Amino acid sequence: MPQNIYDQPDFFAGYSQFRRSREGLAGAPEWPTLRDMLPPIAGLRVLDLGCGFGAFARWARVMGAERVLGVDLSQNMLDRARAETHDPAVTYLQGDIEQLQLADSTFDLVYSSLALHYVESFAAVCATVQRLLTPGGYFVFSVEHPIFTAPSNPAWQTDPSGATIWPLNNYLREGPRVTDWLTTGVVKQHRTIASYVSGLLEHGFQLTHLEEWGPNAAQIAEHPEWADELHRPPFLLVGACLQPRDQR
Amino acid sequence: MPQNIYDQPDFFAGYSQFRRSREGLAGAPEWPTLRDMLPPIAGLRVLDLGCGFGAFARWARVMGAERVLGVDLSQNMLDRARAETHDPAVTYLQGDIEQLQLADSTFDLVYSSLALHYVESFAAVCATVQRLLTPGGYFVFSVEHPIFTAPSNPAWQTDPSGATIWPLNNYLREGPRVTDWLTTGVVKQHRTIASYVSGLLEHGFQLTHLEEWGPNAAQIAEHPEWADELHRPPFLLVGACLQPRDQR
Repeated sequence: MPQNIYDQPDFFAGYSQFRRSREGLAGAPEWPTLRDMLPPIAGLRVLDLGCGFGAFARWARVMGAERVLGVDLSQNMLDRARAETHDPAVTYLQGDIEQLQLADSTFDLVYSSLALHYVESFAAVCATVQRLLTPGGYFVFSVEHPIFTAPSNPAWQTDPSGATIWPLNNYLREGPRVTDWLTTGVVKQHRTIASYVSGLLEHGFQLTHLEEWGPNAAQIAEHPEWADELHRPPFLLVGACLQPRDQR
Repeated sequence: MPQNIYDQPDFFAGYSQFRRSREGLAGAPEWPTLRDMLPPIAGLRVLDLGCGFGAFARWARVMGAERVLGVDLSQNMLDRARAETHDPAVTYLQGDIEQLQLADSTFDLVYSSLALHYVESFAAVCATVQRLLTPGGYFVFSVEHPIFTAPSNPAWQTDPSGATIWPLNNYLREGPRVTDWLTTGVVKQHRTIASYVSGLLEHGFQLTHLEEWGPNAAQIAEHPEWADELHRPPFLLVGACLQPRDQR
């Protein structure tokens, strides 16, 4: 099971101050790109892995989802999600993404935002999502970009020539990375882009989208400090579709 | 048209000394991984974009390819390829990958090794390959990895903590990169992994393989100096299949 950092008071207090925590989807700059990877939501049965405060669950219902189940490890997150959601078609479940006990073929869309880089086995996630989706169903997710998670010292440097650089190393060495982010000892699981893609292809998915997100010109004009993100993408966004059994 | 560096005497002399130039496929450490992405070759009509000395063309014929056409910009490369090939089913053509004048739907496999990162428009390559392949045909290629091509100063550094780092920057800024490699002023075209994948998906291809190649343990045992390659993959290897028209 991943560590439950979101239930550590210092981490939760810090995370709650983020723009994406205060403003929901509108505060997440990568959201428009991720949204464009989604199928039409109306009538779908949706599972959100790492649902946090429930912003996506509520959006999916506004867009006509039949029902949404949000899963998160953090009781703090779910308490706020429940307090902010007044909709009998949205339910929340505390649980570990790697240990989900849900009925087969009962979802049309599995969504996950910035959660799966905490999960040790992406192959296990793919096997679970393959089981829970109906054939033709969608799996759309974002994670911290592998270039972002790889380094032993993930912080900007200025090199001897004066250039801003991201000190990449250990990219092909997959496994845990311990960083200090809002609190000490946060454990993320680094894996390569190839591992994310191969995990999907090996579990009956067809890749439909792959984006290495960075801010666009309008976003940089509004937030000039984001320009450095063009040196290395902060997020990897992936869309996939579960192939019908006869085409796997 | 890309610059024709392989016909510059200093570059060609240097390149000809490489292990992959002297030993062919056996001298290319990524070849076993790329080979495993290929369909069974027997009976296929094969096009090799950037065929170099013709090592792949001859291998494909040994594996039973019906015919092989090798295309390269370099007269030096093709002269040696023709001198080393004695097979009426292998032909070589001097030409620019971006300007190929060949009949539609006349190939079952398009292969390319370490050539497409010299080509300005990958979308144009995808459009051409889509046109030349029969439905269900394969497109398998390697390129220098985008992490390798991105930096303004693509050379190992030691950071203040003593760690070996690859000074990544400008990853999301696509376009030409001028480096000194065997000669001065070599122009490569940097683009992201997402651009390679999206180019394929937008031209009717289904992704079948994506590998970020680095040496395995046996290769590092034999060549300990290759261990640094685990810090950043040197090659991106991609396999795709052209979907039948009714499934695009």
